Amino acid sequence: MSTSFKKVAIIGKYKSPDIALPLLDMAHFLEDRNISVVLDRLTASHIGDCAFPVMELDEIGAEVELAIVIGGDGTMLNIARTLAPHGVPLVGINQGRLGFLTDISVHTMFETMGHILAGKFVTESRMLLAAEVVSNDEPVFNVMALNDVVVTKGAAGNMIEFDVRVDGQFVYTLRSDGLIVTSPTGSTAYALSSGGPILHPSLCLMGVVPISPHTLAARPIVVAGDSVVEVRMHEAEDVRVHFDSHSHCDLNGDDRVRVRRAPVEVRLLHPVGHNYYRMLREKLRWSESL
Amino acid sequence: MSTSFKKVAIIGKYKSPDIALPLLDMAHFLEDRNISVVLDRLTASHIGDCAFPVMELDEIGAEVELAIVIGGDGTMLNIARTLAPHGVPLVGINQGRLGFLTDISVHTMFETMGHILAGKFVTESRMLLAAEVVSNDEPVFNVMALNDVVVTKGAAGNMIEFDVRVDGQFVYTLRSDGLIVTSPTGSTAYALSSGGPILHPSLCLMGVVPISPHTLAARPIVVAGDSVVEVRMHEAEDVRVHFDSHSHCDLNGDDRVRVRRAPVEVRLLHPVGHNYYRMLREKLRWSESL
Amino acid sequence: MSTSFKKVAIIGKYKSPDIALPLLDMAHFLEDRNISVVLDRLTASHIGDCAFPVMELDEIGAEVELAIVIGGDGTMLNIARTLAPHGVPLVGINQGRLGFLTDISVHTMFETMGHILAGKFVTESRMLLAAEVVSNDEPVFNVMALNDVVVTKGAAGNMIEFDVRVDGQFVYTLRSDGLIVTSPTGSTAYALSSGGPILHPSLCLMGVVPISPHTLAARPIVVAGDSVVEVRMHEAEDVRVHFDSHSHCDLNGDDRVRVRRAPVEVRLLHPVGHNYYRMLREKLRWSESL
Amino acid sequence: MSTSFKKVAIIGKYKSPDIALPLLDMAHFLEDRNISVVLDRLTASHIGDCAFPVMELDEIGAEVELAIVIGGDGTMLNIARTLAPHGVPLVGINQGRLGFLTDISVHTMFETMGHILAGKFVTESRMLLAAEVVSNDEPVFNVMALNDVVVTKGAAGNMIEFDVRVDGQFVYTLRSDGLIVTSPTGSTAYALSSGGPILHPSLCLMGVVPISPHTLAARPIVVAGDSVVEVRMHEAEDVRVHFDSHSHCDLNGDDRVRVRRAPVEVRLLHPVGHNYYRMLREKLRWSESL
Repeated sequence: MSTSFKKVAIIGKYKSPDIALPLLDMAHFLEDRNISVVLDRLTASHIGDCAFPVMELDEIGAEVELAIVIGGDGTMLNIARTLAPHGVPLVGINQGRLGFLTDISVHTMFETMGHILAGKFVTESRMLLAAEVVSNDEPVFNVMALNDVVVTKGAAGNMIEFDVRVDGQFVYTLRSDGLIVTSPTGSTAYALSSGGPILHPSLCLMGVVPISPHTLAARPIVVAGDSVVEVRMHEAEDVRVHFDSHSHCDLNGDDRVRVRRAPVEVRLLHPVGHNYYRMLREKLRWSESL
Repeated sequence: MSTSFKKVAIIGKYKSPDIALPLLDMAHFLEDRNISVVLDRLTASHIGDCAFPVMELDEIGAEVELAIVIGGDGTMLNIARTLAPHGVPLVGINQGRLGFLTDISVHTMFETMGHILAGKFVTESRMLLAAEVVSNDEPVFNVMALNDVVVTKGAAGNMIEFDVRVDGQFVYTLRSDGLIVTSPTGSTAYALSSGGPILHPSLCLMGVVPISPHTLAARPIVVAGDSVVEVRMHEAEDVRVHFDSHSHCDLNGDDRVRVRRAPVEVRLLHPVGHNYYRMLREKLRWSESL
Repeated sequence: MSTSFKKVAIIGKYKSPDIALPLLDMAHFLEDRNISVVLDRLTASHIGDCAFPVMELDEIGAEVELAIVIGGDGTMLNIARTLAPHGVPLVGINQGRLGFLTDISVHTMFETMGHILAGKFVTESRMLLAAEVVSNDEPVFNVMALNDVVVTKGAAGNMIEFDVRVDGQFVYTLRSDGLIVTSPTGSTAYALSSGGPILHPSLCLMGVVPISPHTLAARPIVVAGDSVVEVRMHEAEDVRVHFDSHSHCDLNGDDRVRVRRAPVEVRLLHPVGHNYYRMLREKLRWSESL
Repeated sequence: MSTSFKKVAIIGKYKSPDIALPLLDMAHFLEDRNISVVLDRLTASHIGDCAFPVMELDEIGAEVELAIVIGGDGTMLNIARTLAPHGVPLVGINQGRLGFLTDISVHTMFETMGHILAGKFVTESRMLLAAEVVSNDEPVFNVMALNDVVVTKGAAGNMIEFDVRVDGQFVYTLRSDGLIVTSPTGSTAYALSSGGPILHPSLCLMGVVPISPHTLAARPIVVAGDSVVEVRMHEAEDVRVHFDSHSHCDLNGDDRVRVRRAPVEVRLLHPVGHNYYRMLREKLRWSESL
């Protein structure tokens, strides 16, 4: 990977006026180093008039060699998914408490970016999920997810019933609140709250995690990253599938959701010395004893 | 309690034509023993023309000394809640796999009812929950629940955030899929799927069970039956509270749900030798080893 | 209860030289208020020569109107069990991080004790467990426990197998690492680590909590405080029962352990405003979000 | 792999006289097909005088092209570990309820073995763990495990405290009953009882599963198969490490246990149509609904 970044995009959390200042500071910091800066249209619209060129987010991928995301993990999730097909590496800067994906504090961002621009960084690839909704044997929805694909009951609040298959093999029929198919990245999000294991982010795996299963012996299952997980509804009144809590799709009777590894990956740049377990300890309060 | 039943109601699962036959059989069985039989209007409407007097369900409570419910636990739940204020004892007959509340098989119902009519039965009282939704300090919804009161996220699928108080004392702020306040009866239903303990049905207690909590250290809490559990939403876009999966109410910002013991109880009659733990073993497949 | 304490025992954590100073400070504080101070022999032996009368711990119960325990929850557990038959109320002072039972900081102990001596306190009664080991139908061991009675595999590390009965009714056969019978006080200790619910300490209940059960559908059960829980070993090579992690007894084939409510209770005095849930939040880190 | 087996070992569960008959039946079945049969010494000593050559188990590996194990999963575990360095494939025949590793019923063994001898089988490779105990920086114990390496408290029953590192990176300090490092094969054994996920056996991964952790937020972690998991005791009175519940080693203060992937694998032969998930459903009773 090129370590000389000539053109860099900066993307901020939407509807967050307080990122305007650090964002412009970062833009000038880069300009001072003779790096071209691009803003995405939505970000630009929130920080008001500025001198930097503006592009649509989906055009940016083809133009830049690096994207700097200023915001939280939710913002990073959305940007990463969109830029993944272009292979643009990402750096995450966080104004508040550090996130799993946004691990650089706004307070140290110039120092850290200085190192990164000087080639001192580690690259991490994260697997993405590709989900497909199939209705009457026709694909009706296709989307990628970095965290998870979640089949879940709707507002009526009744348990749902569905079959789970892995690589065409029947696993179980579940009656539950739903099912999470998670990537390693998503394993520390919703799947963790539902009793799923933490999957190290370097792995290419999927976790299949039942949500409040009626069958008490149902357990999370970890399957290969190149497997296909299929959820087939028994009947589907009031069932919905969510992708990264960002988009969703209602399911009808007999619909199927298929999840597999996406053909592209997300590339994250971290400062040298980045330590996944330290982040886990901080986020999950492991360092504290009872 | 009177053990001579002169007037008995028979209530069947709605929209279930296959209960017509056992229901009429039971009606004739009772008539043959000089017991007046009453049907509720909805049941009667499903079994077609019949010779027995018909009443509204909420009138039946004041009229009969016993109600026989033919159906599953869901039917029993609804009938029990409605008849509880009248103190009418209930007997549950099940056509399929026995339930927690409907523990008499249709295949042995005449023998068992013979014993019950002869006074050979045990009576079990079950605590009911009384729930109140308070909006702008005004009670806007009041309802009883035999199983549980469930505050939960709606169709948008986003975690919800709320405070829990017990007897006015702040317990915790939770970000989760929701919270279950369960009676002992409900402890083997949804609360069990969400990691709650089994509460023996003779106890007067409430279980407070978080659903997929973001705070991993959150745990189910068991509080006194005469406590008041209050859930107060932080903000309440797309939040709903369900009562026994039977009725529900949407919650708005800052709404509160208060749950306490209802002033009335449900009375269930069981055959002598009724054994709660045997039922648990059968329902939860405990008798089987790995 | 008398709120004028004329004779008070002070008991310190054994083998902890650093409690000598606060202990003697407290002794002089009481003496200055014309209260007779007694030390137990073991405590006295650790703090060296001192002017206060010394008694055996089991004699102290008959002599004093209040016992002040300086140490952690482990010390309090042991003292409380010993003094419970005498009905002596206890106050717990902690030098380090506050415990569930020792909720007064050494830094504020004079102020708090001043209030308590002035009658400003709340009294809390805690249920104790009475355990009996029965071998060949003969009771061979009797002991009380404030936290829990734990049947567990020994050093060989193999799963053990046993039947659980409640009030003579068979509940289940478990193959597991063991079983915890916990009081509400113990519900925040080992039982919590093993997936048991938190039982409010005001309740008179027992929790039955399997440890790593082979039967995945086995769940914690909460039973009445006046129930009898019996564990009967199938075979008992290398099985042991622990009482409050303080004493233990090896079990042989077919031995039974019976746990019921003890005839005495522990009485704890707390400062006015004592709040159980605040302590839970602090100890379990609930106040923190992910 | 050769599918023409000329020399086959048969190994039976030790101390199980009832396997003598099927074992000799199988031996004659093979002889009738011109296959040389070898018995291991221990097996032979249990079935009495017989006409087949006898060898030590550790010599067998170099001699045969296939080993047939008659017994349960425990027997298979031990034989597989011993034969793994020789690459001998294994077939598991079970007299009772089928196991995860012994998936051929004694009732259909001739038919199934006929297919296998005819080359109709699927081969499955299972990862083995290599464990090393290090004391004062010296390796003092080396052993392989197919299921798991379990660091656990001893008979005294007190929680133990230790650090966990993965690939040299500090993960957490745990106070718990212990820690399980499991292979995918072991993920359906003890690790499952302790809340670990099911890891598909085709994967090369290790699961790190805390046993009854005091830190409630501790969760199972899944790491790469080529990682090194290290457990380092804080102090180690009464701590023991178990390997496949077969061998063990006491740990002293500051001892370390290191677990990595073994350089050899176990090869299992299954009938065509072998289905891992069907076995899971049967063993874990997933096919049953509440």
